[in-house]
Amino acid sequence: MIKIVLLGAGNVATHLYNAFKNASNVEVVQWYNRNKKTIERYKNEVNITDTVSDLVEADVYIVAISDDAIQELCTTLPFEKRLVVHTSGSASLYDIDMKHFRGVFYPLQTFSKDVDLDFTTVPICIETLRKQDFKLLEILGQSLGCKTFKVNPKQRPALHLAAVFVNNFTNQIYRIAHEITEKQGAEFDILKPLITETARKVQEVSPYLAQTEPAKRNDKKTIKRHLKLLDNEEHKDIYKLLTSSIKNTHGR
Amino acid sequence: MIKIVLLGAGNVATHLYNAFKNASNVEVVQWYNRNKKTIERYKNEVNITDTVSDLVEADVYIVAISDDAIQELCTTLPFEKRLVVHTSGSASLYDIDMKHFRGVFYPLQTFSKDVDLDFTTVPICIETLRKQDFKLLEILGQSLGCKTFKVNPKQRPALHLAAVFVNNFTNQIYRIAHEITEKQGAEFDILKPLITETARKVQEVSPYLAQTEPAKRNDKKTIKRHLKLLDNEEHKDIYKLLTSSIKNTHGR
Repeated sequence: MIKIVLLGAGNVATHLYNAFKNASNVEVVQWYNRNKKTIERYKNEVNITDTVSDLVEADVYIVAISDDAIQELCTTLPFEKRLVVHTSGSASLYDIDMKHFRGVFYPLQTFSKDVDLDFTTVPICIETLRKQDFKLLEILGQSLGCKTFKVNPKQRPALHLAAVFVNNFTNQIYRIAHEITEKQGAEFDILKPLITETARKVQEVSPYLAQTEPAKRNDKKTIKRHLKLLDNEEHKDIYKLLTSSIKNTHGR
Repeated sequence: MIKIVLLGAGNVATHLYNAFKNASNVEVVQWYNRNKKTIERYKNEVNITDTVSDLVEADVYIVAISDDAIQELCTTLPFEKRLVVHTSGSASLYDIDMKHFRGVFYPLQTFSKDVDLDFTTVPICIETLRKQDFKLLEILGQSLGCKTFKVNPKQRPALHLAAVFVNNFTNQIYRIAHEITEKQGAEFDILKPLITETARKVQEVSPYLAQTEPAKRNDKKTIKRHLKLLDNEEHKDIYKLLTSSIKNTHGR
């Protein structure tokens, strides 16, 4: 049984808590948040606290809080030589005080407060300094049914940056499409199967191979017509820049 | 039984042929392509031809060829007052010669040559001048198991433009993410569940609501770090522009 103390109460922490609750060889022995009220409703199923000096012993302390707060909280933890990990894609492992055994347990997925998520589909990126810590975090990830990946200090920030592209930027692209259709009173719903298929295709072939002909062909007539349809200057710029990017990728 | 003559042999035509073949109340009575070789392998199951003067009678002539070629082919069709439709998202209905009853049967999806597709998920956008033509095309779409949508001459090009965003541009965003991860020897595979989840989320909530906090927060420290990680100037520009677009959408 792996004993965990969870610190933080945001989206990632809450999703992790629910996932750990259902894992057979893991026990969340305590849940800390600086504001106890946020986790008050869990008090009948887990020991909750808002006081670092009350933290109990555990195999892993999982710090799932905002990047900027990691350093400070880790310094105040009233123990040393225990495994403390954060869950951030971009914060350094060294943000954790050196008195601890340090690691990162980064679930690379988008977590929404009220959207249920099949946690078994979440890849866990693991970074540690000691081999035995990696092993433990690997078992922890696997106990959630997740695939685990060993990453180094350069790979994790790159993955986090790439995640911003495929999640936040893609979502903004969807948003612009929504604005374009809405303006003409066309249903955004019509685009949903295309959104699904575009995401599905790159599960099997590379994005390079998945790109379709017309875009690669860089047809000037279509581009001109599209730019005329766009009345938002920023959308025009995005259209031009991504069209140019496709052209550069496909070399025409 | 709706009798169809299919004209063209590209991705859309081929996918349509295969879909019609499996529909119970539709018969492809002839398949035309200017280069007969391309469809030679279907000759045992359907009447094929490369000669417009040999075209047989049908309820609908579906012209699934490149936008630039529609006008010319439709003019040469040796009959009049029959329903002729093209499948383009951007070509005008008026590209079809006025001697025909004209329409558009636009399947809004990404078609790859060798990727099988569940055609029942493809939305069909229909534009016609006459009510009875709309009815027939609607039945045709439904016979493929598709959802059909009545669109007007302003909505279809808007949908086509929006489709370029959610398909080609999104795919290019995936490509950039691929380059970012590859550069550090990180596995692109790690991003695939996030790609799936990002596409899945907007099936249920609007892209506006689906956007996650950190991106909306427009955290300057993270942005600075990300821009430092990007060494491709165009990728930097795309990052800046989409970050600004998110900021404008979410008003911070």
